[in-house]
Amino acid sequence: MKISHIEHIGIAVPNLEKAIEYYENVLGLKCYKKEVVEDQKVTTAFIMVGDTKIELLEATSPESTIAKFIEKNGGRGGMHHIAFAVEDGVAEALAEAEEKGVKLIDKAPRNGADGLKIAFLHPKSTEAVLTELCENPNK
Amino acid sequence: MKISHIEHIGIAVPNLEKAIEYYENVLGLKCYKKEVVEDQKVTTAFIMVGDTKIELLEATSPESTIAKFIEKNGGRGGMHHIAFAVEDGVAEALAEAEEKGVKLIDKAPRNGADGLKIAFLHPKSTEAVLTELCENPNK
Repeated sequence: MKISHIEHIGIAVPNLEKAIEYYENVLGLKCYKKEVVEDQKVTTAFIMVGDTKIELLEATSPESTIAKFIEKNGGRGGMHHIAFAVEDGVAEALAEAEEKGVKLIDKAPRNGADGLKIAFLHPKSTEAVLTELCENPNK
Repeated sequence: MKISHIEHIGIAVPNLEKAIEYYENVLGLKCYKKEVVEDQKVTTAFIMVGDTKIELLEATSPESTIAKFIEKNGGRGGMHHIAFAVEDGVAEALAEAEEKGVKLIDKAPRNGADGLKIAFLHPKSTEAVLTELCENPNK
């Protein structure tokens, strides 16, 4: 597959407003958008840093994978996933990964936050890092 | 502080060669350098993705924080830290962070991997994400 850059880093946070305050006030970065992603039961805040977004993720339900991640982590947030922008399309990248023996979470691209087509690879096949592949269908 | 981009993402791995193989073979990225960082008791492999490096970190001693991270994580690796490139210098950024009540791991910049000046902020003050500030003194 052809990866151009890290599209985003997903960071789980127990409290979105408190996290935004840290990124804005201490690090001097700016949150440019918030979005509820029903599918993943999260509210996301986007922060651009160079070519890469930081996606702060707060659970909207105890059933959210983000709520479970935080619970497992003793109530603390933390880095949750890394997302790569693929130039040759997510469907092609998934097919290539599967052919190479990678376990897929998503067998086909689905709609993600910020208008992207996305799919997740399973951490069992990615050196224990939850890994997302993304493409921007409007580019 | 003025952050220009994410300088690198530090990823702890139990086996560096196995991890490099995944990044190269599955994701199609290239490891351009390996370096032993005595100070941090790690061997690091660097992979460039857009403007950002992935720093794969394997412990060289059971005393390494990376060995402890992996042990705590049930023998698995995972995303360990995020490093931001600061334009106004690490010393200035540290002073600003401390003034804003951030707990520092490093009170002053020290030598890091790949020729950088670095310092860590404490995860207690950074929404539970171990956060590094970097500058390239040769730029």
